[in-house]
Amino acid sequence: MTEKILAFLPVTELAPLIHSRQISPVEVTRQVLQQIEAIEPKLNAYITVLKHQALTDAHAAERNILEGNYLGPFHGIPIGLKDTLMTRGIRTTAGSAMFAHSIPNYDASSVVRLRQAGAIIIGKQNCHEFAYGSTNNNLTFGPTRNPWRLAYIPGGSSGGSAAAVAASECIAAIGTDTGGSIRNPAACCGIVGLKPTYGRVSTFGAFPLSWSLDTLGPLTKRVKDAAMMLQIIAGYDPMDLTTSLLPVPDYTAGIEDGIKGLRLGIPRNYFFERIDPEVKMQVERAIKALIDLGAVPVEVTLPYVELSLLCTYTIIFAEATSYHEPLLQNWANWYSPDVRLYLEAGDALSATKYLKAQRLRTIIKQSLHSVMEHVDVIATPTVPSPAVKIGQNTVVLNGQLESVNDAMFRYTCPFNLSGQPSIAVPCGFTAERLPISLQLVGRPFDEATIFRAARAFEAATIWHSIQPMP
Amino acid sequence: MTEKILAFLPVTELAPLIHSRQISPVEVTRQVLQQIEAIEPKLNAYITVLKHQALTDAHAAERNILEGNYLGPFHGIPIGLKDTLMTRGIRTTAGSAMFAHSIPNYDASSVVRLRQAGAIIIGKQNCHEFAYGSTNNNLTFGPTRNPWRLAYIPGGSSGGSAAAVAASECIAAIGTDTGGSIRNPAACCGIVGLKPTYGRVSTFGAFPLSWSLDTLGPLTKRVKDAAMMLQIIAGYDPMDLTTSLLPVPDYTAGIEDGIKGLRLGIPRNYFFERIDPEVKMQVERAIKALIDLGAVPVEVTLPYVELSLLCTYTIIFAEATSYHEPLLQNWANWYSPDVRLYLEAGDALSATKYLKAQRLRTIIKQSLHSVMEHVDVIATPTVPSPAVKIGQNTVVLNGQLESVNDAMFRYTCPFNLSGQPSIAVPCGFTAERLPISLQLVGRPFDEATIFRAARAFEAATIWHSIQPMP
Repeated sequence: MTEKILAFLPVTELAPLIHSRQISPVEVTRQVLQQIEAIEPKLNAYITVLKHQALTDAHAAERNILEGNYLGPFHGIPIGLKDTLMTRGIRTTAGSAMFAHSIPNYDASSVVRLRQAGAIIIGKQNCHEFAYGSTNNNLTFGPTRNPWRLAYIPGGSSGGSAAAVAASECIAAIGTDTGGSIRNPAACCGIVGLKPTYGRVSTFGAFPLSWSLDTLGPLTKRVKDAAMMLQIIAGYDPMDLTTSLLPVPDYTAGIEDGIKGLRLGIPRNYFFERIDPEVKMQVERAIKALIDLGAVPVEVTLPYVELSLLCTYTIIFAEATSYHEPLLQNWANWYSPDVRLYLEAGDALSATKYLKAQRLRTIIKQSLHSVMEHVDVIATPTVPSPAVKIGQNTVVLNGQLESVNDAMFRYTCPFNLSGQPSIAVPCGFTAERLPISLQLVGRPFDEATIFRAARAFEAATIWHSIQPMP
Repeated sequence: MTEKILAFLPVTELAPLIHSRQISPVEVTRQVLQQIEAIEPKLNAYITVLKHQALTDAHAAERNILEGNYLGPFHGIPIGLKDTLMTRGIRTTAGSAMFAHSIPNYDASSVVRLRQAGAIIIGKQNCHEFAYGSTNNNLTFGPTRNPWRLAYIPGGSSGGSAAAVAASECIAAIGTDTGGSIRNPAACCGIVGLKPTYGRVSTFGAFPLSWSLDTLGPLTKRVKDAAMMLQIIAGYDPMDLTTSLLPVPDYTAGIEDGIKGLRLGIPRNYFFERIDPEVKMQVERAIKALIDLGAVPVEVTLPYVELSLLCTYTIIFAEATSYHEPLLQNWANWYSPDVRLYLEAGDALSATKYLKAQRLRTIIKQSLHSVMEHVDVIATPTVPSPAVKIGQNTVVLNGQLESVNDAMFRYTCPFNLSGQPSIAVPCGFTAERLPISLQLVGRPFDEATIFRAARAFEAATIWHSIQPMP
């Protein structure tokens, strides 16, 4: 294999080569490390790179595979982890100065499972401090830059993970998503990002932001990579009592079956109203492509969905402050000003306001679940705007000013409230060469259907094959 | 049948007589109405008595039964409903002046099921205003008096229902229990009261106090009466999404099977510490009786249970205020001072305090569930004190002063937090002739086992057969 080409391949292509011993995990890991060495000075996607440990693990994987102990598609694959995920013996900062030297003595449950599946941890990735924001403009570890245009944000809070996958500084990554923190960086960086159903993947060992909304999922180059990664991390975990006992289906079995007859919900309200015209056009083209592939369009109205952002913020405000309270009392100066402001504001929130938000959430959830009786998948833009410039705090859409956070979370947070699985898939570029993303939303615990729809779209389009050259 | 004797019989004895047509529902209803006429001036257990409608329904039941359409053990049985339960076309006050003339256009789900089972609604029973307190000292409709000693409270908030059952002003009743509001009145009035597992019985159409704790259940003269009543009201209800889809077992099938080998948890901490000495002695005797009946005693420690009252109050404060907010804004003067004070205090509670209580609740719940891996039933006193005098606001136990509410809810509220089923059973009297009560607590959705234990105790003792003479 030519030097440096391996880092650019998805799991789907690397796994058969590793399995058939045509390439070694050591070679893949070395090339990914070379890519990190070349690109990191520009991107700053990592907080910690595990050069020595990753190579040691790659050698062990190589030996195992040569001895005939192939563990499956992630065996020998170098992956990155958002730095909010606990890693035993490896510094875990949560993107905060407070934990700049903190070394946990346990692995997050998903990390345990990925290690058992033979994955190689290549490093811990930059994120918005405590996962509490969308710009990834981290004041302690520096901002992560968008690999498509270095002056732009990669989205957040899982921005380092998305940027690293897009720039081939790892083959796949794990992020977390409370209001959209996997999907908006996937959108900004032009890769695939899946927020699973609430309760499908253990969040044990992931630094909590808002426990009634937090989820954890894959960021990958291809849809099938995400399906294979979910296969490993999904399922009941006794360490996380919110995980479901429902059996985990085979996510790749029907993934190439196409979408003939799939009932595709297209929202009449909210999702195409206050939006960048290029994004709108490209997502409408994507929907057209899905219909051409056999999906049956069904226009749907999503009642109350306009209240999602207010509802999400209120819940996060209260739950985040509740969790951070003891830290805030003792180390308030260690927080960045934006995060500290949110946390202190959360303290002023009354219990009745919080409960009003949770009751509103139930109404939104029930109304979305009723809509899903009539459709199999809902298609929306992932974010109304392409990535914005680093340091930019507001954005104007349809002549209306809003905060970057609002724009980044507006279209994704309804499905954190409802608990539904949703996936971001690349669907084009703006004239300024910034990625545009399609969001596909499914029924609770029916990740298989959105994988199948996303894969059908991916197979019929070219967007996934265009890579950034940072 | 001799006049007036029928009202004093439990469902267990009346049902076979009605089924075999030896007595008519009309006769039973008439005798219960006579008892109400004689006793109500002393007790004030009812807000509304449905004399005419009950007799009409009794005649219809009589006809149906004569025509061979016997519906089961509650067919033709006159029952009472706590006035927080909505009844179609019948005034429902929730014990509040605000709703003194309010007539709902629907029945609570449990009322629907009891009507379908042929029960006759004899009236709507007095309660603490909005179910928010334990003394039943209702300022709008007057206090309900304890049928054992008229100067004493019947407990609350389901005090009217418990007093009416004890004084044979109805054969059985439905109450609600958020922190102990079925069990402490059952204890104070010397009858059986069951708080089912959270999610076992629909609370649709019951005026909410605190939705994450509210339950609804039977108040009866005998354990088997409660089992038969639960049989009717238990199960999934599409109108209450907190109800469980778990199948409802047959609650009377094994009820006489005894308790040989039953592992009986006896708490080392909390439940026998700050307690009236007569209550302590009599509950210890009851536990001794259970062991004599074949139960195997297991000493258990219940961690964190000391924090239950604080935790329960915090949750109720927030949720009750959240629910009442629109009423409080417009009709604050219509509340009684005690309830208004609670509701206004709840408004000052922060979201983080509420969330701390819900997180503490999870810890208490998990610790209680772990204990239940080692025992089948836990036995405790239902309340640490016998009923107190009407107007008495505090009580001294072991030299420590506490509010009557604290004393009334201290031993019951841990199982609202944990969601476990628990039953109050009469187990003796103080020297002053006030009832004492044993509480038996089971695993979630295992009401059958506490019915069996309670029935074994009842069959071996005489307490249930002593009736008050108000």
